[in-house]
Amino acid sequence: MTNVVITGGAGFIGARLARELLAAGGLAVAGEPERALTRLTLADRVPPPADLVADPRVTAVTGDLVELLASPASAAGVLGPADVVFHLAAAVSGECEADFDLGLHANLHATQALLAACREAGQRDSGSRPAPVVVYASSLAVFGAPGGYQPGAVVDDETLPTPQTSYGAQKVMGEYLLADYTRKGFLRGRALRLVTVSVRPGKPNAAASGFMSGIIREPLAGQRAVCPVGPDTEVALASPAKAVAGLLRAAGASDDEWGGLTAVTLPALSVTVREMADALSRVAGPDVADLIDWAPDPVIAGIVRTWPARVSSVRAARLGLRPDPDFDSVIRAHIAETR
Amino acid sequence: MTNVVITGGAGFIGARLARELLAAGGLAVAGEPERALTRLTLADRVPPPADLVADPRVTAVTGDLVELLASPASAAGVLGPADVVFHLAAAVSGECEADFDLGLHANLHATQALLAACREAGQRDSGSRPAPVVVYASSLAVFGAPGGYQPGAVVDDETLPTPQTSYGAQKVMGEYLLADYTRKGFLRGRALRLVTVSVRPGKPNAAASGFMSGIIREPLAGQRAVCPVGPDTEVALASPAKAVAGLLRAAGASDDEWGGLTAVTLPALSVTVREMADALSRVAGPDVADLIDWAPDPVIAGIVRTWPARVSSVRAARLGLRPDPDFDSVIRAHIAETR
Repeated sequence: MTNVVITGGAGFIGARLARELLAAGGLAVAGEPERALTRLTLADRVPPPADLVADPRVTAVTGDLVELLASPASAAGVLGPADVVFHLAAAVSGECEADFDLGLHANLHATQALLAACREAGQRDSGSRPAPVVVYASSLAVFGAPGGYQPGAVVDDETLPTPQTSYGAQKVMGEYLLADYTRKGFLRGRALRLVTVSVRPGKPNAAASGFMSGIIREPLAGQRAVCPVGPDTEVALASPAKAVAGLLRAAGASDDEWGGLTAVTLPALSVTVREMADALSRVAGPDVADLIDWAPDPVIAGIVRTWPARVSSVRAARLGLRPDPDFDSVIRAHIAETR
Repeated sequence: MTNVVITGGAGFIGARLARELLAAGGLAVAGEPERALTRLTLADRVPPPADLVADPRVTAVTGDLVELLASPASAAGVLGPADVVFHLAAAVSGECEADFDLGLHANLHATQALLAACREAGQRDSGSRPAPVVVYASSLAVFGAPGGYQPGAVVDDETLPTPQTSYGAQKVMGEYLLADYTRKGFLRGRALRLVTVSVRPGKPNAAASGFMSGIIREPLAGQRAVCPVGPDTEVALASPAKAVAGLLRAAGASDDEWGGLTAVTLPALSVTVREMADALSRVAGPDVADLIDWAPDPVIAGIVRTWPARVSSVRAARLGLRPDPDFDSVIRAHIAETR
């Protein structure tokens, strides 16, 4: 009997997480034995994919998260009461740089509303069930160096977040808010800093990191793709499977295993964009890799340059989380999954 | 022609800052030459002291900051348009631990509302004047170690904030929000992490750090005072004069002098509580120091233990900020100022 909520449940990671949960039929929460998944609520501004809606365990709630949580009655329709909330809903980095208010609303205010609603739901239950586990998708974008990191610089569990985007600033604020709700016992928060997910299937989004999927995905579909950063640019990546595995591990870890109030960074594969193109050439042939147009865009390159390319997390390693072994295997998995 | 706003302007630090500004008659802002102080708005939940209200340059605005800023018209009455905003209004640590909602409202939501209002005011001026300087009183309470810091541990400009109180969590969130507003050019933020101010005159407040003034102030007035922590507890202190000087330096520093988006920690004098009592004995006599009752309170001691006792800030030193030289001189200044 486990009730799971995924905000951003119609998005790529949310839908993939939902499919994995539904296929597994159950999940372990906070170190407890695995229990059946009885209800999966997918909250998003748009309806989830049809295959998810068709599952009798799935409830789709469509609307703006701040509005959905504005009244106790509608909040109950989202939260339900929840055993686990995966809070993935967010406006992405490019959107937030272009529209400051959108970022505040979709990232900061929505997170404030969600945590407040989780607390209120718990108080209504008046201690009759454990505080919900809230897995919060934070981001490597909480880090940033104005002039770019030194080559080889590594961010670790103790590194001071210095975001250089509104998205990163909003994400780190959410981490601190989640930590304080957790410290107070209102919920059990696990902030997991996702790194850029590559290869994302589907259409490009407005993230400044979008090209890190586009330069693989589009050529594999026979289309040209623009790489807006230089080939020596090093980036930190995780496959969709590793991102979802990290979120599930965060939900499943006991409080002791999770090991603290601060965020955990998902392990990442560090590669240069040239190495990504070389891997594409090896896996799919040089003609496919030649479909990448190297056309630097100073705005995108300026944002990407501020992000760290190497991460190290003792806590992630202790949780058993590992980076993808190499980018060739990431491309092969993408081909297999989208065939 | 300088218009200054102080939120929390009726509080101890706010009123002292106001008096210093009014006495000086002008101030330097962000590296510009000193200009006359033409208007000083003191916003607080309670009216400011009578001597301040009597000054023709002073406008008192009384009310809850979130409510005062809720409409553009009433926000204009507070901000007006401001050249410098000192954002000191806050609920203190003890209050926030006792009342989570109060802390969110008074610290986080009020800061969100203030920064949004500053941005809106700037947009109405449509670039006709420089973005306002916002000096944000953050706190050493952004730091914290769950089991207490190792003896001698120092927090510096690069230390990861790990607040162990809601007050600290709310303050660090405000730092990140201020930094992002600054990065976007909506205002020029300077987050200054104040340390415990001692000796505060007047009545005790609900801060967990209140005893650090009370054990000096009350005995000097012939009254007994409880010290709720052990004599070996080391604390980081600054005199009222040093705190106000730090706020003024933050407002006066040019963007280059300020030197970054992250917060600066006010230099602090590190002393044990026993050393404080010994200083009181030297300055006022052993009979006065004997008025301290050593009665450990596990709740207060538990909060204080999580705070760092030693700070180091390269940026503060570069700004010319220095800690008090010794606690004897702090006590003497308190006696002279409250005579």
